[in-house]
Amino acid sequence: MSLGTHNAELNQLAMSEKAQPLLDAVIAHIRDNVDPITEEFYKLGEGRADRWSYAPGQLELLETAKVKARESGLWNFFLPNAETGEGLSNLDYAYIAAELGKNPLAPETLNCSAPDTGNMEVLERIGTPEQKEKWLKPLLAGEIRSAYAMTEPDVASSDAKNIATSAVLENGEWVINGEKFYISGAGDPRCKIMITMVKTSPDAEPFKQQSQILVPIDAPGVEILGPMHVFGHDDAPHGHMHIRFNNVRVPEENMLLGEGRGFEISQVRLGPGRIHHCMRSIGQGERALEMMLDRALSREAFGKKIIDLGKNMETISRARIELEAMRLMVLKAARAMDVLGNKEARIWVSAVKAMVPEKVCQIIDQSMQVHGAAGISQWFPLSDMYAGQRTLRFADGPDEVHHHVVARAEVQTFKNSNDRTPVIAAGRKFEGP
Amino acid sequence: MSLGTHNAELNQLAMSEKAQPLLDAVIAHIRDNVDPITEEFYKLGEGRADRWSYAPGQLELLETAKVKARESGLWNFFLPNAETGEGLSNLDYAYIAAELGKNPLAPETLNCSAPDTGNMEVLERIGTPEQKEKWLKPLLAGEIRSAYAMTEPDVASSDAKNIATSAVLENGEWVINGEKFYISGAGDPRCKIMITMVKTSPDAEPFKQQSQILVPIDAPGVEILGPMHVFGHDDAPHGHMHIRFNNVRVPEENMLLGEGRGFEISQVRLGPGRIHHCMRSIGQGERALEMMLDRALSREAFGKKIIDLGKNMETISRARIELEAMRLMVLKAARAMDVLGNKEARIWVSAVKAMVPEKVCQIIDQSMQVHGAAGISQWFPLSDMYAGQRTLRFADGPDEVHHHVVARAEVQTFKNSNDRTPVIAAGRKFEGP
Amino acid sequence: MSLGTHNAELNQLAMSEKAQPLLDAVIAHIRDNVDPITEEFYKLGEGRADRWSYAPGQLELLETAKVKARESGLWNFFLPNAETGEGLSNLDYAYIAAELGKNPLAPETLNCSAPDTGNMEVLERIGTPEQKEKWLKPLLAGEIRSAYAMTEPDVASSDAKNIATSAVLENGEWVINGEKFYISGAGDPRCKIMITMVKTSPDAEPFKQQSQILVPIDAPGVEILGPMHVFGHDDAPHGHMHIRFNNVRVPEENMLLGEGRGFEISQVRLGPGRIHHCMRSIGQGERALEMMLDRALSREAFGKKIIDLGKNMETISRARIELEAMRLMVLKAARAMDVLGNKEARIWVSAVKAMVPEKVCQIIDQSMQVHGAAGISQWFPLSDMYAGQRTLRFADGPDEVHHHVVARAEVQTFKNSNDRTPVIAAGRKFEGP
Amino acid sequence: MSLGTHNAELNQLAMSEKAQPLLDAVIAHIRDNVDPITEEFYKLGEGRADRWSYAPGQLELLETAKVKARESGLWNFFLPNAETGEGLSNLDYAYIAAELGKNPLAPETLNCSAPDTGNMEVLERIGTPEQKEKWLKPLLAGEIRSAYAMTEPDVASSDAKNIATSAVLENGEWVINGEKFYISGAGDPRCKIMITMVKTSPDAEPFKQQSQILVPIDAPGVEILGPMHVFGHDDAPHGHMHIRFNNVRVPEENMLLGEGRGFEISQVRLGPGRIHHCMRSIGQGERALEMMLDRALSREAFGKKIIDLGKNMETISRARIELEAMRLMVLKAARAMDVLGNKEARIWVSAVKAMVPEKVCQIIDQSMQVHGAAGISQWFPLSDMYAGQRTLRFADGPDEVHHHVVARAEVQTFKNSNDRTPVIAAGRKFEGP
Repeated sequence: MSLGTHNAELNQLAMSEKAQPLLDAVIAHIRDNVDPITEEFYKLGEGRADRWSYAPGQLELLETAKVKARESGLWNFFLPNAETGEGLSNLDYAYIAAELGKNPLAPETLNCSAPDTGNMEVLERIGTPEQKEKWLKPLLAGEIRSAYAMTEPDVASSDAKNIATSAVLENGEWVINGEKFYISGAGDPRCKIMITMVKTSPDAEPFKQQSQILVPIDAPGVEILGPMHVFGHDDAPHGHMHIRFNNVRVPEENMLLGEGRGFEISQVRLGPGRIHHCMRSIGQGERALEMMLDRALSREAFGKKIIDLGKNMETISRARIELEAMRLMVLKAARAMDVLGNKEARIWVSAVKAMVPEKVCQIIDQSMQVHGAAGISQWFPLSDMYAGQRTLRFADGPDEVHHHVVARAEVQTFKNSNDRTPVIAAGRKFEGP
Repeated sequence: MSLGTHNAELNQLAMSEKAQPLLDAVIAHIRDNVDPITEEFYKLGEGRADRWSYAPGQLELLETAKVKARESGLWNFFLPNAETGEGLSNLDYAYIAAELGKNPLAPETLNCSAPDTGNMEVLERIGTPEQKEKWLKPLLAGEIRSAYAMTEPDVASSDAKNIATSAVLENGEWVINGEKFYISGAGDPRCKIMITMVKTSPDAEPFKQQSQILVPIDAPGVEILGPMHVFGHDDAPHGHMHIRFNNVRVPEENMLLGEGRGFEISQVRLGPGRIHHCMRSIGQGERALEMMLDRALSREAFGKKIIDLGKNMETISRARIELEAMRLMVLKAARAMDVLGNKEARIWVSAVKAMVPEKVCQIIDQSMQVHGAAGISQWFPLSDMYAGQRTLRFADGPDEVHHHVVARAEVQTFKNSNDRTPVIAAGRKFEGP
Repeated sequence: MSLGTHNAELNQLAMSEKAQPLLDAVIAHIRDNVDPITEEFYKLGEGRADRWSYAPGQLELLETAKVKARESGLWNFFLPNAETGEGLSNLDYAYIAAELGKNPLAPETLNCSAPDTGNMEVLERIGTPEQKEKWLKPLLAGEIRSAYAMTEPDVASSDAKNIATSAVLENGEWVINGEKFYISGAGDPRCKIMITMVKTSPDAEPFKQQSQILVPIDAPGVEILGPMHVFGHDDAPHGHMHIRFNNVRVPEENMLLGEGRGFEISQVRLGPGRIHHCMRSIGQGERALEMMLDRALSREAFGKKIIDLGKNMETISRARIELEAMRLMVLKAARAMDVLGNKEARIWVSAVKAMVPEKVCQIIDQSMQVHGAAGISQWFPLSDMYAGQRTLRFADGPDEVHHHVVARAEVQTFKNSNDRTPVIAAGRKFEGP
Repeated sequence: MSLGTHNAELNQLAMSEKAQPLLDAVIAHIRDNVDPITEEFYKLGEGRADRWSYAPGQLELLETAKVKARESGLWNFFLPNAETGEGLSNLDYAYIAAELGKNPLAPETLNCSAPDTGNMEVLERIGTPEQKEKWLKPLLAGEIRSAYAMTEPDVASSDAKNIATSAVLENGEWVINGEKFYISGAGDPRCKIMITMVKTSPDAEPFKQQSQILVPIDAPGVEILGPMHVFGHDDAPHGHMHIRFNNVRVPEENMLLGEGRGFEISQVRLGPGRIHHCMRSIGQGERALEMMLDRALSREAFGKKIIDLGKNMETISRARIELEAMRLMVLKAARAMDVLGNKEARIWVSAVKAMVPEKVCQIIDQSMQVHGAAGISQWFPLSDMYAGQRTLRFADGPDEVHHHVVARAEVQTFKNSNDRTPVIAAGRKFEGP
């Protein structure tokens, strides 16, 4: 189904009334429990001995906020009940995610950080009771963190079929060899488990060769080669790690869902996490626009306020228009997941994935330009924000792959359609061959 | 209020259930009563003696369709009841307008052509009983057509305060002198009346100098100098006329609302017409994309289908994404008119006015490029469509003016806001001066 | 050889001293002999009975100017001496072409109109003595005009191998069947001959299947179906004609160069004509910028001159910078033809062909926007200019084909290169896999 | 004079024959003396104790190369002889600068690093004998380094008239107070002197208020607050420092040229340094394109080489075309400095300053996208290159200021011109008001 296929229900983009109290509670939580500790948290971190650890006191600050979230019933609100299917709709979650994006500590205090949400969702839906007991339980309790090991340095992993890290079954153990990079969160000392995409059946048909498997980060043979930088940032202690698997052995039962079902699991993973990312990107665009206004209204050059020079007013208008258009598109993608299910809604998700980070990068860049040289310095968060958004144009597949998904759906819809617009437009009949 | 000011109610963009039967009826009317006469209508027109008239049989074809619309209760559905305020919401109208855009004859058969809808809306809301009797009644009956005379060749009328056509009261008559151009619809032989923007009080404060007044097109002194072309098209017999007012005298009671209240009336005029235009633009973009797919799938070069060459798939994806984003924005502007009223919603209307025609021009241009040289010829409607959409970037004010409206609202909201995003983003505190 | 391959000689872009007197003479000729008749020429044309003819007096005006050109020794200056190889360099011609582009009648008065220059060049270089006597002589004398029939409506002729019009040898005659369109100049009543691309050897290897052949326009079976419009313009009486060849028979000796050598001839055709087109495009961009300045400096809105509003100053700067960059690129392409020969220089020609019309379209579009609604009307030449430049993005191959030529050369150069930039940049060593 | 004012001499862009031996010598020097030490130099640097120093051995490596440059007669080749005016033309220097840009150590080994070249040029042209003796001599000998202190954090210094750092004459000493940032090179332990822009005459007319003065970096009261980061890089030990002047006292004779003549000196400073920067930017674009080709040709996804996917070939072509156009523009700016002098040529310099870094940023960004996630990591220099080029969009004035310079020249040329293109274009006469 192409994006253009109309369905009025999909345009009901207002938050539900029943989600309002939750949204209010989240806003209050951030204001009362998270914002007040944020400055101290980062200040403490500056003095830490090892970039890949937390300073004394940092985790305690977080724990305090986590306790308060539990007390307010906000802990794990992201996860639908697997049996009843009840839970927050993706649309309602999107509105809340926009708030979560305003403070970088907020998600963890509510146990909804990436990539944990995706990992918990996968385990919750397709994990065995043993897998749930061992990994989901401590994740839900916020006792450990997790990672998702997909991308590889040696192949163009935009084509997931290229994934080459191998897993071979030997004596009831999977023996894993290969190299992954950009394993986000694997630098955190609390990270204990990685869901890892491996090739188990090189001779099967293309979409049945891959599997996903649970690999403890402290398994012998897991070698962390170092952090990948993004625009010079190592994002310690979270990190985007470069990891080599040297004959890593995990028990046979660590396989998720079943051998050759790796791509099937990826379909499950399209949930709240993706929407969270997109709403956070829009939040970054909002922040860049707000900073642009602040700077442009507070400085003068050539006898005028900066805002009244050149194209600045038009830049502001265009940024605002694009932000609103993106927000509606993300809400619609969330709504599509609710109405059509994740599989059918993947076209909408690809559309916003291809649309949002690219445009947000442009808005941040324009905000930098209005700031002058200070805008790219440590005095403003703009260059960090840019690095983050630029990175998103690769995460979960580069823009080009998502555009291809959208275009292919468009072609299919066109081919299936018998109900074309008539060939008369603007009063002229098509006289072609 | 800036576009970014959130209000969940504004995001309820689904068509109402009660509008569904009307939408169905309009679709059926176009399919059954309009599509079947369209080719004949234009073919008859080709043989007319005078470009500024209709050929025998043309108007009869239209009348037949109009009668059927009346029988189905679809006549004048666009107009809310002035007393009860009841009628179609702008949001519901937007969905219907998308259908109206698919056949250029459809609007007239339902009496909702531009600029008649705007003129009828103004007369209905602020006309005197005598003005209604004389002009609104025949307009509602579809017996006459009308025009709106605003733009002037000698000044930058993007700044409406520049309007220079003067009206001076002499012996109970307004004596009008000046020159207007791009008076759309004034070429139609059935056009009888023009709502005309004039300067009546040059010494009043800037926004109180202008008035709007009813000028019969056959009043002595109204001199039609000729049609303005757009990209070489004269759009006869509708036309975009260049008109000189030479001592044109109209009775004192032709003044609308009152001397100096011209800008006030413009606020009323932001109704269904504007939304109709935008939805029609999106329809043109859809049509261009559909043609792009059709051509790209049916031709080959260098051993591949055109669609598989170079950037064509990405072009298709980007066009689809932008079309969906624009559609949601137009629906939201319609919804804003319903929820906030025309005055408050004007920022949304400016946003879509600045956004839509520019992007649709790009999509049409890309479709042309995929078509090769034939794409700009008379064999395809693309160059006509382009000319039409390019013209819209000036109609009702150039893009730049609408961007300014949006940016100004953004500045105002920023200044009023006490609730800024905290200065910590991405874990880094702003250390600036 | 890629564009990036350096060769200092190629950067000698100044006009030669010996060309200066010729340039001065051409400028004087246009000022004294062409500008004064231009208005009258077009005014006479408006009254002509048949769009596809000239009005009495029109051709006489042209002939007078042509006589003066002959008297000044300017007639046919474009053509190098085939035996000595002497003549104007392409670089010098480019400077002169810029002047020719300022008056649409100028080229014909000097016998250097498109597509005649290309046709004459081909005949001069590879024609047989008989072909020269019959067709080149009257062309050089300015007694007849000519056309070049390449593009076909039924195939994507951007891939010239798709050309399907067939020529089969029967009894000493080539029998031609097929359909061509956009045959520029074939509407002129003086046009007598078409160089026509045909498929003669469908079973030969791909680049040996095509031939070019001389077809008199009055040969039995040549059916002119009508003019192709570009953005609604038919460009009568010059015209871009749609022509069907119905069993058209021409003598065997009308074949140019030899059967299967069609592509070889195309290489010859890369001469003055191509450079002329590009310089003329830049001239159109200059004209659009000049009009933008004129309008922006002479109107006011919102209390300021238009030029001081919004992004207009930056738009002007960007237009100027792009125009200068394009001019240098065209001069370098001309220089490359002089230094490297047409075949090697084709990469440069593709570069400017892909670069210039697209950017000039943007500049004209921006000039329109500054003009307001009048900018797209018949009051200004901008929409005609836009149509012309937009058309050039297809003529001689769409932009995409030329970008492909440039990129392919780039790939080849990269593969051949052993002399890569060292892997250290900005002080950081490449640590990659 | 606008860029569009033609002057054939300006288009003579080939390197002179006499510069060829120098270019060859520079190439040989880099190959033989600089490339071989580069890896070691940076490796040594990694182990240094203090980021703001050099490790033992680093400077010795550089000195060895400097000695070799002196032996080959290449030392200080950038500086024209002040008395005879003889020296390298800017055009020839541009060709050499392109080579210098290929190794980051190369300029220093030839004593032509930024900002020293600009400072030496200023001292050489307008310094007093005492100033030359004290500062120019050790700079020419490569014994010390220098900085240029212009930009201020508290004002929009894109408008140099905003400069607020004050210098007041007291008892034969200038007492300086204020704050500067982005003082490039002031982090180097060898940096001894800063040419500092100060406000000396706040009551004079706007362009006479500023002066430039020599401030030793070790003068009491010069407080280095820390390095400004650019996209997270501190560029140690060179650095872009943030400096406060607290009652810094320098002798009266440290004033350059005279009180109130600060802007006059800036005109002198438009020399080789600016051209060097631009050629280096183009070199970075070349490098990004080369890396794009390398990656796109060596990886596969979806069964094709990356280069054959989507728009990649067109991206390569567009990058190449823009690079060539930029190179010609920079050469022309250099030539303009030679032919017209620095003052008149400043329009050309502004044009390339506004054109080059913006486009090079785009090319680097596209190269990143082709690389996938690795492209923004430390494995490739692309994100560093991006940070560097993005910074250049502010250095020496933001793009907007340079566009304004170009546009203003355009307006002036238009107003002065009596020789407009005639109003007939494309056969249509302007019928406007």
